[in-house]
Amino acid sequence: MRLPKRRSTMTEPLPPGSTIGILGGGQLGRMLAVAAAELGLKCHIFCPDAESPAFDVSAEKTIAAYDDNEALKRFAGSVDAITYEFENVDLGAAELLAAMRPLRPGARALEVSQDRLSEKQFLTGCGIAVGGFRPVDDVASLEQALAELGAPAILKTRRFGYDGKGQVRLEEGKDAAEALAAIGNAPAVLEAFVPFRCEVSVIGVRDTNGACASYAVTENVHRNHILATSTVPASVDAATEAAARDIAATVMSELDYVGVMGIEFFVVGTQESESLLVNEIAPRVHNSGHWTQDGAAVSQFENHIRAVAGWPLGPTERHSDVVMTNLVGADAQAWASLAADPQARLHLYGKREIRPGRKMGHVNRIIR
Amino acid sequence: MRLPKRRSTMTEPLPPGSTIGILGGGQLGRMLAVAAAELGLKCHIFCPDAESPAFDVSAEKTIAAYDDNEALKRFAGSVDAITYEFENVDLGAAELLAAMRPLRPGARALEVSQDRLSEKQFLTGCGIAVGGFRPVDDVASLEQALAELGAPAILKTRRFGYDGKGQVRLEEGKDAAEALAAIGNAPAVLEAFVPFRCEVSVIGVRDTNGACASYAVTENVHRNHILATSTVPASVDAATEAAARDIAATVMSELDYVGVMGIEFFVVGTQESESLLVNEIAPRVHNSGHWTQDGAAVSQFENHIRAVAGWPLGPTERHSDVVMTNLVGADAQAWASLAADPQARLHLYGKREIRPGRKMGHVNRIIR
Repeated sequence: MRLPKRRSTMTEPLPPGSTIGILGGGQLGRMLAVAAAELGLKCHIFCPDAESPAFDVSAEKTIAAYDDNEALKRFAGSVDAITYEFENVDLGAAELLAAMRPLRPGARALEVSQDRLSEKQFLTGCGIAVGGFRPVDDVASLEQALAELGAPAILKTRRFGYDGKGQVRLEEGKDAAEALAAIGNAPAVLEAFVPFRCEVSVIGVRDTNGACASYAVTENVHRNHILATSTVPASVDAATEAAARDIAATVMSELDYVGVMGIEFFVVGTQESESLLVNEIAPRVHNSGHWTQDGAAVSQFENHIRAVAGWPLGPTERHSDVVMTNLVGADAQAWASLAADPQARLHLYGKREIRPGRKMGHVNRIIR
Repeated sequence: MRLPKRRSTMTEPLPPGSTIGILGGGQLGRMLAVAAAELGLKCHIFCPDAESPAFDVSAEKTIAAYDDNEALKRFAGSVDAITYEFENVDLGAAELLAAMRPLRPGARALEVSQDRLSEKQFLTGCGIAVGGFRPVDDVASLEQALAELGAPAILKTRRFGYDGKGQVRLEEGKDAAEALAAIGNAPAVLEAFVPFRCEVSVIGVRDTNGACASYAVTENVHRNHILATSTVPASVDAATEAAARDIAATVMSELDYVGVMGIEFFVVGTQESESLLVNEIAPRVHNSGHWTQDGAAVSQFENHIRAVAGWPLGPTERHSDVVMTNLVGADAQAWASLAADPQARLHLYGKREIRPGRKMGHVNRIIR
């Protein structure tokens, strides 16, 4: 698949007082809204959930379904530029919005990143290494893919998977039909098991003039498929660090991207000879970039807003070593002791109800 | 005047999800609301101005006059604790609110700081040095005061003065009646002219358990009676720095204060033998503390919210040298070049209309 390339139009920056529309009202939208406010910009949050955390820090809100075209049109008509906090924005809605106002990042980034197969084909087409993969449409193609990639392997739905949802691990001898049934017989991709040394990510950002920047590579640990900690600097060598940041620039430029992007990698090989495989890309601010709030002069949230508003990017240099720890579910009950810890910068999302697996907040610990 | 002393009641901290009520919806309320959001707390802003900048970042708002007792009661009934962003809160309103919810800082801090004469008498009673002053009620007492303090001297209304409003400078031979008329014949205080070497301030904070902390002393330059720049560190010696921070602790403890306080000083004497005179105290977050957003791990805004919510204080250590520059009136038109300056951390207040003398934003420049 070759997607058409488009160039950004040179645009005037939106002046202070302008309104950024944000699709999605979770913690990412909330932190974007706070960053926008610091720059004198207003936010209008569009979210179907009446209890959205981002509503508490935004000038305007629309409570409506993402497929409510009339609400989407009113929303677009009331803002100056539009962005989103999640990659599963319906492409029809994205096109409707993009026809009315600048949508940043654009619909192409959504199209590529919403489908694991399209994403891997796009990356491969850019000359970027990914783990082995095969498209899976039925039992026959899954059996063929397993024969080629070997077991263990991970079967993932092409669309709408996140935090470990929509995936199943296939061990040697596992029944293909059963595995396909476990993911609802949805169009899928089989991914070869990657024996990685560690997982890292990079947060890139690109402005409307095509200038690219990125933050230091972060080393990530997942627990129950949910990000647990992100640490900067990562335990990778300088060449790997540079390679990850180069890949971010390539991906963003190829997509004519505007805004912040998160790219997750597997680090494979030995410490003496390590290399990178892209795991996935997220066309939005990213959990593994939350350390930038306390470890860089300008956070990923401010830089995303700057890009979306057509402003120049702010500096991305890391000034401290940081460990970011997510507060997932009951972790948030420790808020009082975290508030009393002078090394812990506490960020809570204002979510009313603690639920298992729900991201309630995070803590950035400045190590030095 | 000896004001009664009260001790704080030991209180449980307000859990995340609680609502802080803030009287006043300007830039200070706005930055407090953002800081509260970072800790998972909601804000309810009470302000008569329908265009209040703080409304854009707050979960709830009440647009009503400060003397609308029914609105004040509804407001108090809907929040968990109450604070304010300006010192001229009506004492009757403060008492009404304090009877319903914790009001932090309390009514006593308002009572003392709303009246220049009460404030100076309170400070003197604490053994803290202030410049020469005399109460002025009429022409006769003004002439007597002038004879005692000498010219030049500054005549200031006891109440409702700010940014140079409500004051007039008396030179040798100036007509007393004319000067009194210039400030509306209001009850006043005559202040001896202080030949200061520089102006400095300190931001103190005290929690509900009586723990005190303060930030580094800031050197301030005013232009047209409005703060122009604040620089940390200030060009004062270590003993003066320590003395200013001690005074903050004394004042806060004597008032059984909870929250952030700004104290402005004149530095007098020579560089070899300098001493401090308190100019005024502000029972709120303070413009000269805006550098803490980018020069300290926890800003004055977060620490005020922590104190008001009954949380422990966060660290106040300065990690960088900073020059804070206010963007007053047309200064804000330079936003695009400031946004492009990698040394400048830009903070804009979302005010629609630029007016002469109006504080539109500020810039923190990290010097090293």
